[in-house]
Amino acid sequence: MIAAGKHLLSIKQLSPDFLLSFFQQVEKNKKAGFDYAEPSLAGESVCLMFLEPSTRTRVSFEIAAHKLGAKTVLIHKDGTSLEKGETILDTFKTIHAMGCKYFVYRSSDSSIEQVANYFGNQIALINAGDGVNEHPTQALIDGYTIWEHFHDFKNLKVAILGDLARSRVARSDIRMLNMFGVTPYISGPVELLKSFTEEKVQLCTSIEAAVQNADVVMMLRIQKERKEVSFSYTEKDYLNQYGLTDTRLKLAKKNAIVMHPGPFNRDVEIESSVADGPQSKILEQVNNGVWTRMALFEAIARGM
Amino acid sequence: MIAAGKHLLSIKQLSPDFLLSFFQQVEKNKKAGFDYAEPSLAGESVCLMFLEPSTRTRVSFEIAAHKLGAKTVLIHKDGTSLEKGETILDTFKTIHAMGCKYFVYRSSDSSIEQVANYFGNQIALINAGDGVNEHPTQALIDGYTIWEHFHDFKNLKVAILGDLARSRVARSDIRMLNMFGVTPYISGPVELLKSFTEEKVQLCTSIEAAVQNADVVMMLRIQKERKEVSFSYTEKDYLNQYGLTDTRLKLAKKNAIVMHPGPFNRDVEIESSVADGPQSKILEQVNNGVWTRMALFEAIARGM
Amino acid sequence: MIAAGKHLLSIKQLSPDFLLSFFQQVEKNKKAGFDYAEPSLAGESVCLMFLEPSTRTRVSFEIAAHKLGAKTVLIHKDGTSLEKGETILDTFKTIHAMGCKYFVYRSSDSSIEQVANYFGNQIALINAGDGVNEHPTQALIDGYTIWEHFHDFKNLKVAILGDLARSRVARSDIRMLNMFGVTPYISGPVELLKSFTEEKVQLCTSIEAAVQNADVVMMLRIQKERKEVSFSYTEKDYLNQYGLTDTRLKLAKKNAIVMHPGPFNRDVEIESSVADGPQSKILEQVNNGVWTRMALFEAIARGM
Repeated sequence: MIAAGKHLLSIKQLSPDFLLSFFQQVEKNKKAGFDYAEPSLAGESVCLMFLEPSTRTRVSFEIAAHKLGAKTVLIHKDGTSLEKGETILDTFKTIHAMGCKYFVYRSSDSSIEQVANYFGNQIALINAGDGVNEHPTQALIDGYTIWEHFHDFKNLKVAILGDLARSRVARSDIRMLNMFGVTPYISGPVELLKSFTEEKVQLCTSIEAAVQNADVVMMLRIQKERKEVSFSYTEKDYLNQYGLTDTRLKLAKKNAIVMHPGPFNRDVEIESSVADGPQSKILEQVNNGVWTRMALFEAIARGM
Repeated sequence: MIAAGKHLLSIKQLSPDFLLSFFQQVEKNKKAGFDYAEPSLAGESVCLMFLEPSTRTRVSFEIAAHKLGAKTVLIHKDGTSLEKGETILDTFKTIHAMGCKYFVYRSSDSSIEQVANYFGNQIALINAGDGVNEHPTQALIDGYTIWEHFHDFKNLKVAILGDLARSRVARSDIRMLNMFGVTPYISGPVELLKSFTEEKVQLCTSIEAAVQNADVVMMLRIQKERKEVSFSYTEKDYLNQYGLTDTRLKLAKKNAIVMHPGPFNRDVEIESSVADGPQSKILEQVNNGVWTRMALFEAIARGM
Repeated sequence: MIAAGKHLLSIKQLSPDFLLSFFQQVEKNKKAGFDYAEPSLAGESVCLMFLEPSTRTRVSFEIAAHKLGAKTVLIHKDGTSLEKGETILDTFKTIHAMGCKYFVYRSSDSSIEQVANYFGNQIALINAGDGVNEHPTQALIDGYTIWEHFHDFKNLKVAILGDLARSRVARSDIRMLNMFGVTPYISGPVELLKSFTEEKVQLCTSIEAAVQNADVVMMLRIQKERKEVSFSYTEKDYLNQYGLTDTRLKLAKKNAIVMHPGPFNRDVEIESSVADGPQSKILEQVNNGVWTRMALFEAIARGM
C-alpha cells in the first residue's frame, strides 16, 4: 500500500488514489469507534524514537499503537546509547535485533533516509518529523480533516500562514495539496517565509489576501526553539500584523475551516476566539491524528 | 459517587458516608487480591501528567491503572508541548481529543481547577498534588490505613508533625479527619508551621505534647525542594528537637500506629528504628495506595 | 534454579550445569519464536530501575517482560524520590509494597547487595550492571552466543580486548568462561588494563598475540563516560594501535566469531568492516539478549 515498501518518509511517496482510499478507511474506523479496532499489531513492539521533544505526536502514536494491541518502547535522546558514541543506524539495528519491526522516528536531521536505505522492507519506518524537512503523518491528518469536511479538494482555496520557514508540516501539507491539484496561498512575515522550489504555492503579500475567500485557513506555530531564523516581534505585534484574528477570518468563506497543527501560541499567531471558535478544527485534527496513525499502522501491517 | 462529577480535586468533595463505604470496598478488594481485580478500565488510556517530580505517586497510579486493564501514557514537564508555548488547558484538550478520559495530574500550581471547570464531566480528573494545596488520594490512603487498623475514627487522637507549612498531604489529611470529627494535634518547628483557617487543628507547643497518648502519629517529610520557607537545621539537630524518635513514640498509646506519606528522610524527621519498627504503617500506606487508587478509578468508572 | 534464591547479582552464583541447561532452554525458545512465548509473567509488574543511562539493556528487558505478559514500570534517576532524600533501599521497599516482585536494577554503586540481603526471596532482583563490578545477564548472553555457535567451550581460545579496566561485562564474561575451564586472553592499552585477582586470565602484551588463533574475539567499548581512568588517544590512533581491524582479525581462526557487548564506537575500537562483517555476532548478541532475559525471567518464575 505504502509506495516505498513499508516506510513513510515523505508524503510524496503516496498517490492521490491511495490517499483517497486511505481517507475512506480512516472515516470508516472513526465511525466504528475505538471498541471496534482490530488488534492488527498484537504481539508487536513499536519503537517510538523521539530525538526531539514531542508530546502530541509521541502520545498520539503511542495511543494508536496501544489501540491496535501493540506494546511500545520509548527512546528519548537523553540517557541513550547515542550519548555513548553509537551511530543512529546502529541504534536502529540494535532495537531491530530485539524484535521491533515498527519504528516511529523523529530527529533534527535527515538520518531517516539512511535508516530506510539500510533496512529496506525489513522494518516499517514512519517519519514523525525529520528536521525542517517533512512530517508526513501530519499531512495525512490534515488531508483527512479537509476531506472529512469537504469530501473533495476541487476548487478549494487553502491558505497556509505564519512560520513557513521552519515548518516541516507546511512542506508536507503543500505537497499533499499539490497532489490534489490545490495550490495553497501562503503568507507571513518576510523573515518566516521561504521559497518553495519543488512545491507549487501562491505567495501573497498580505495575510488578508491569502485568507480572502479561503475555504481552509491553516495557521502555523512560531517555532521559537528553532534558531535558524532571526526574528523578533512582541506577541501583540505579531497577532496584530500576522495573526489569525476574528477580523481576518471574516475575510474567508463563511463556512471556512480553521486548522493548526499545534501546539499553538494563543493570541500570538492565532486569536483565542478563532482557535476555540465554531470554525476551528484544531482539536478535530488531534482526534483524527489517532485514527490516521492507526490506519497507517494497519495499512503497513497489511502490506507486509 | 464522586461528589463533583468525575473529578477528585479536594478531599472536601467527599462525604464521611462515601468515605466509609469506599474504605469497605478497598478492604474487600485488598482481601481478594490483585488476581481478582476486575478489568474496569480495559480499553482506556490513562494519562499520567506529572509536571512535578514523582516516583511513588506516579508508579502507584500506573500500577493501579495496569491492574484494571488500562494502558497509560506518561507526560513529564521536560520535552513537552508546554515548553513550546502551549497552555496547560490546551495540553489537556489535546490529550483528551486523542481519546483519553482519565487524567492523573500533578503540578506546582492550581491549574487543576481551571481544567476541571473547563471539562466538567467529560473527563475524570484526579488531583495527584496541586502545589502546596491538596493531595486528596493520599488522604484516602491515610484515612483507609487508619480505618483498617481501628475501624472507627471516634475518640482517636491523631498527631501530625513536622513540615506542615509545605505539606499538601497535611491539609488533605486534616480535612479528611475533620470530617470524621477528629481534630488533629499538630506540632513542628515554628518555621514549618502555618495557620490553618478553614481546618480544625489543635496546635501543640511541643512534639511531646502532640504525641502524648496519641493513637496515630504521622510525621511529614521536610520538603527541602520547596523554597517558600527559609529554614536550616542540621539533620541531627532536627531529629533531636523535632524528629519522631523511639523515646518520643513511647509517649503515644501502646498500640499507636506510625504513619508517613513518604518518601522519608531517615534519621532526620523520623528515627530508623521507628520507621522500620512494629508500629510503623509506612509500607502498609504504600500498599494501600495501589488498592485505594484502584478503588477510586473503579468508583469513577461506575459513576460515568 | 538461580543459586541464591531469586536474585542474579553475579554470574558466580550459577553453576556450569545450570548454564548449559539454561542455554538449551534459550535455544529451544528462540527456535519456537516469540509467538510461542508462554505468558509466564502475566499479571506481574516488572520494575526497571535504571539509575545509570541505558538504551539497549533497558529496552531488552522491557521487551522480554512484555513478551511474557508483564507490565513494566520504569524508574530513572531524574525526578525520583531519591532526589527527595530517600535511600535506595527505601525506594525498593516502596515499589515492592506496591506489588512489584521483579526488579531489574542498574546503578553506579554496589547497593544491589544491600537490597538483595534485605529482601531475601521476597523479590526477584536482577543485576543490570552495578558500577564497574558485574553485568551478569550480559555474560548469560555472551555465554549463550558462544555456545550457540560452538556447542562446547572445550579448547576454545577467547580473546577479550580493549577497555577492561572499566568493563563490568568483562568481569562477568571472564568468570563465566572460567567456569567452563576457559582462560581468556586479554589485551589492550596499558591504561585500560587492570589486574584480575580472583579470575583467571592470560595477559598478552599485544592485541595480535591475543587474537592469534582465537575462536572468539570480543572487543569492549571505550567507556569515556567513566572518569576513573585518565586516557587519551585520537580515534584513529586507537584503531591503529588497539582496534579490532580486518588485518588483526585475519590472525584469528578462519571461523572465529567477533563479539562486542555494544554500543560500539565504529572505527575506534572496532573497524566497521569487522563489526558489519560475516564473522560478527554483535547483532546476534542483541537478539539473544531478549531470549536470554526471557529465559531468566522464566527460570526465576518457576523457582518461586
